[in-house]
Amino acid sequence: MNRKELTSNIISKQSFLCVGLDSDINKIPKHLISYPDPVFEFNRQIIDATKDLCVSYKINTAFYESRGTKGWESMERTLHYIPKDIFTIADAKRGDIGNTATHYARTFFETLPFDAVTLSPYMGEDSIRPFLEFDNKWAILLGLTSNPGAKDFQFIQTTSGHKVYQEVIAKCASWGSPDNIMFVTGATRSELLQDLRTIIPNHFLLVPGIGAQGGSLDQTFEAAANDDIGLIINSSRDIIFADSTENFAEAAKTKAQLVQNQMRTLMSHIKV
Amino acid sequence: MNRKELTSNIISKQSFLCVGLDSDINKIPKHLISYPDPVFEFNRQIIDATKDLCVSYKINTAFYESRGTKGWESMERTLHYIPKDIFTIADAKRGDIGNTATHYARTFFETLPFDAVTLSPYMGEDSIRPFLEFDNKWAILLGLTSNPGAKDFQFIQTTSGHKVYQEVIAKCASWGSPDNIMFVTGATRSELLQDLRTIIPNHFLLVPGIGAQGGSLDQTFEAAANDDIGLIINSSRDIIFADSTENFAEAAKTKAQLVQNQMRTLMSHIKV
Repeated sequence: MNRKELTSNIISKQSFLCVGLDSDINKIPKHLISYPDPVFEFNRQIIDATKDLCVSYKINTAFYESRGTKGWESMERTLHYIPKDIFTIADAKRGDIGNTATHYARTFFETLPFDAVTLSPYMGEDSIRPFLEFDNKWAILLGLTSNPGAKDFQFIQTTSGHKVYQEVIAKCASWGSPDNIMFVTGATRSELLQDLRTIIPNHFLLVPGIGAQGGSLDQTFEAAANDDIGLIINSSRDIIFADSTENFAEAAKTKAQLVQNQMRTLMSHIKV
Repeated sequence: MNRKELTSNIISKQSFLCVGLDSDINKIPKHLISYPDPVFEFNRQIIDATKDLCVSYKINTAFYESRGTKGWESMERTLHYIPKDIFTIADAKRGDIGNTATHYARTFFETLPFDAVTLSPYMGEDSIRPFLEFDNKWAILLGLTSNPGAKDFQFIQTTSGHKVYQEVIAKCASWGSPDNIMFVTGATRSELLQDLRTIIPNHFLLVPGIGAQGGSLDQTFEAAANDDIGLIINSSRDIIFADSTENFAEAAKTKAQLVQNQMRTLMSHIKV
């Protein structure tokens, strides 16, 4: 999916919500366990219930890999079930040298045909470059994360007067364009998001941390929305685990609807 | 495997060689393609030929994931085929927040019972901590890598007078001990390895970059060996793809033997 299509979907759905399918088999409703592939069945019902309210699904690979090949089968089935007009993200946070990176790119752009994959930039340009060679595919780079450990290295002060995450984001942005690079930026730090927009005014930001992690949607929007919105806001547990009974999908829909209502209101305040 | 057992294996085998099973299905000998699991058959023969000459096998997950569930099956079979007294490394370079990191730890310590997994430290302590809670398991953290892109962020100068990689290594070391943390450090920079030993004198270093990437075994040993060796030197393509005919395993053995001879000579110069 290209940027124009993504923006067009955001405008037509009046939503920039990404539903995170962190579908831990130990947390899904118990009645699903009798299905041949319980995690897929859970995802299928979540997708049916929320697909009109979101523009993206994000699959966190850890929750699938931890079940080995069965988990990879659940991931494959889920990816193929997602409607083609919804932006799909492999939240895999890979990052390795050139030849290996090429194999990771094939994994998440060909074997599993996601639109985008999250990547860790620590190893530098050659670890990212192979992902930028695919048309209409996206590298979503870890910039400023929302977890407590973000302070350990991302906030180290450099001699050029910046923080490490600022140098990371500025340099990474130079390797591609807003048409093939996005950044993961934590919503719990909206004052920093505003500042980041001076470095990357046009890139899409994938923002986790709304909901369970405590970030505010309104503040994030105010700090970082750009002329074509430029935000994909992720919510995982708050939506998919809203209810643990047979009504889980309906409850997920209600939660997603609340977020989408809020997004529609925010979008009505700016002209896109 | 604990540190004492690893060191004991190194001394008894007179080797600190790790054979990297970067077993790209497009690069293995053509006659293997008719096997039900060509990559496993390739690995099986490589392991049979080299297991007396090395102390570790490293499985680069990218080369398996790029084949989807079939690749994961090859990885599982390979891991279970490796003799139990050989140290197994999942070269996965994962790194994500706490709850997700726990799932990755289960993936590589339980579902696939490796001894160690490589991790990217960019997200900080909570992305590493879950891996340190397993007995006799190891987190191998990216410190100073050997690829060209290492310069992009690892060498940023900080206001405390260090490079980013030095601060990363020093802080990561404080989260555990030389009994559950190792570091990936590039062999193409042996002068820097020597300097690193002032920060982490006792940790094992996993050193890629010998062979195809141009690092020197002698220089690395001189710069970074400690009282109980403290090095695991990886060689992948140079060994496993030494020959593309039916003699590939014998050729791999010859290559591994050359490296092991060199290691025995180096080890004879110090008392362990």
